[in-house]
Amino acid sequence: MALIVHKYGGTSMGSPERIKNVAKRVAKWARAGHQMVVVPSAMSGETNRLLALAKELAPAKETQSYMRELDMLASTGEQASSALLAIALQSEGMDSVSYAGWQVPIRTDSAFTKARIESIEDDRVRADLNAGRVVIITGFQGVDESRNITTLGRGGSDTSAVAVAAALKADECLIYTDVDGVYTTDPRVVPEARRLKTVSFEEMLEMASLGSKVLQIRSVEFAGKYKVPLRVLSSFTPWDINIQEEAKSGTLITFEEDTQMEQAVVSGIAFNRDEAKISIIGVPDKPGIAYQILGAVAEGNIEVDMIIQNIGKDGHTDFSFTVHRNDYARAMDLLKVKVLPTLGSTEAIGDTKICKVSIVGIGMRSHVGIASKMFRTLSEEGINIQMISTSEIKTSVVIDEKYMELAVRSLHKAFDLEQVQA
Amino acid sequence: MALIVHKYGGTSMGSPERIKNVAKRVAKWARAGHQMVVVPSAMSGETNRLLALAKELAPAKETQSYMRELDMLASTGEQASSALLAIALQSEGMDSVSYAGWQVPIRTDSAFTKARIESIEDDRVRADLNAGRVVIITGFQGVDESRNITTLGRGGSDTSAVAVAAALKADECLIYTDVDGVYTTDPRVVPEARRLKTVSFEEMLEMASLGSKVLQIRSVEFAGKYKVPLRVLSSFTPWDINIQEEAKSGTLITFEEDTQMEQAVVSGIAFNRDEAKISIIGVPDKPGIAYQILGAVAEGNIEVDMIIQNIGKDGHTDFSFTVHRNDYARAMDLLKVKVLPTLGSTEAIGDTKICKVSIVGIGMRSHVGIASKMFRTLSEEGINIQMISTSEIKTSVVIDEKYMELAVRSLHKAFDLEQVQA
Repeated sequence: MALIVHKYGGTSMGSPERIKNVAKRVAKWARAGHQMVVVPSAMSGETNRLLALAKELAPAKETQSYMRELDMLASTGEQASSALLAIALQSEGMDSVSYAGWQVPIRTDSAFTKARIESIEDDRVRADLNAGRVVIITGFQGVDESRNITTLGRGGSDTSAVAVAAALKADECLIYTDVDGVYTTDPRVVPEARRLKTVSFEEMLEMASLGSKVLQIRSVEFAGKYKVPLRVLSSFTPWDINIQEEAKSGTLITFEEDTQMEQAVVSGIAFNRDEAKISIIGVPDKPGIAYQILGAVAEGNIEVDMIIQNIGKDGHTDFSFTVHRNDYARAMDLLKVKVLPTLGSTEAIGDTKICKVSIVGIGMRSHVGIASKMFRTLSEEGINIQMISTSEIKTSVVIDEKYMELAVRSLHKAFDLEQVQA
Repeated sequence: MALIVHKYGGTSMGSPERIKNVAKRVAKWARAGHQMVVVPSAMSGETNRLLALAKELAPAKETQSYMRELDMLASTGEQASSALLAIALQSEGMDSVSYAGWQVPIRTDSAFTKARIESIEDDRVRADLNAGRVVIITGFQGVDESRNITTLGRGGSDTSAVAVAAALKADECLIYTDVDGVYTTDPRVVPEARRLKTVSFEEMLEMASLGSKVLQIRSVEFAGKYKVPLRVLSSFTPWDINIQEEAKSGTLITFEEDTQMEQAVVSGIAFNRDEAKISIIGVPDKPGIAYQILGAVAEGNIEVDMIIQNIGKDGHTDFSFTVHRNDYARAMDLLKVKVLPTLGSTEAIGDTKICKVSIVGIGMRSHVGIASKMFRTLSEEGINIQMISTSEIKTSVVIDEKYMELAVRSLHKAFDLEQVQA
């Protein structure tokens, strides 16, 4: 008997018929002797419907008070779907109960619309599990110390599921989604893309952060921190698929170093076009400049991704960074009003027509020639590289967004990713 | 400066446009210097939409676990509308915050789908009011001692509003609804029906219990118990109507005995066709019979309204009572299986084609001839009376439902209710 956490996305919960199928699948696992906790997302379309209503009424300024109400509003989607799943399980003859985040409670900080989980109490859930109940816990939400409802940001249900699995020391957390696992790259761009049977936690972290939308990045961080065995698998297999077969399907995110040794060095190509590039030209090359620029951006609550500072000449340097495209206009305003006047710099140049393409793989830095192979491949396709950043397990480049598909396909081929995994 | 509670029904909250109008109206009251608490219902149609989803998934048996999930589900409607109203108020430049029942908290018992309010903590709300915030509190719901969400039953938002007004010792509770007050009877049946400027709490209680659907009966009980000045008024007046005029519109439910003296003895005609009649023929006329019959019915959780026991002859009597039509079939089964065999009575006769018509008025019993005038009026129209029951302030008769409109119109005219109120 194991303690298993299932997480189902909005598509899987999209209609009463689909909820019934989820209930049947969960009941199958429970009848096989497992203690089951399920974290569902809101029914597909529901969160958008609610936020569209809010948008019609929204104040000009996005105050904290407004964000708080957005969380009150959006959290109802998961509360409703959780109750419906509990009801469907009862119809399957399973004793089942649903809890909103505050009822568990899942405690978070007070950063409305993007709160972070601080702790999860497990007494209530464990008592239910021991009494033979299937426990449904709303994804996406928690409660702060002042009893305000918070949400974890888009895709936060993945994080909820992993956090719940960590708190309960679950044997495995299964993320059911509309893809059947993690691929070497997006199959819509490269038809030869191949499903990975296993991927290391570190690679998954980079893939998620680099725009591979299979899992919310924070859920991967959580899984890594608490060593939660995590599997991504399809919710579109028939619910009555053989349970042993199902338990081995999808992609397992692993934490053991050993399994990595046999893998290819590059395990996937990630990409996204969510970012915009900002360059400040002619910045005085002296200590504190990076802080002066990025501190102001951070105060504006804008996340910065890549940061590049070139070697200066004549006491001046160029400073570039990328932000999410949604934050681009706000970041430019902020720089023009608050930063440029104090810098004595004359110009901030922006570009929203960029994309970021990355090769991801454990031990990349110790394998000579991986990065240069990437650069050569892009050069052979006539693609100009605008920015480069590297880490232990990835090399990312910023290029013109019109070359994105071409770059991904070329790199997928160059690194032999269509070959079957060892 | 007064502390005012507003309650808005689902129709008033039915679209973003309407929510904006509610926000403008509330902002007008706040700007006039009042401390404002608002209790909204779910957007019209939302509760039905949610319960229809539940119905598609519902188990065969309505267990407590199922009822609990229904409350988890249905309560989301008010949480969403409350957040939307807070957002709309913020757009109007008002500082505003919404609370779900559990956040206040509004404590109830654990009778899912029909919980009763036990207490309301006012610290948090009062602190917000003192800080100049408009406080929105979800109608219809509370939390039990085990941190389960409960709901108060259909129309429960009226009760929430009155209970909140009582807890905060509000100066007045204004129930905005789709009628502009309490009428002498339903204007759809009697076009000459007249709006009452005031109605006593006791009369309102009878009107509500007798099927006048303006207010949920429990909200009237609450208002009476805690002497909450309660006004029913229209939400369809323009939001920018003069506030002094608005404050005097609708119908005020009063608690002072004095104001009743000047009123006509009969203030309204109430009616409903929600009930069914059950008669048990040839019951042994001995002590304990009523309990033997109605005890079994009560154990089946079926509410009984009118109860009539005729004088017995030959040691036997006939025993009749009415139940809600929805409970009729179940009540008949229960009697046949559990009660008749032990009574030695041979027959239970049922009739679902009945209606109840009542005249309501303070001090009715002390005014000779009121009841007999009612009976004469019905007799003149050739309407046969099947059951009669009386109280201090009402006389009710059960008649064939096909005569309902005729009876109501005749009585309205006979008691001069179309005349303007003194």
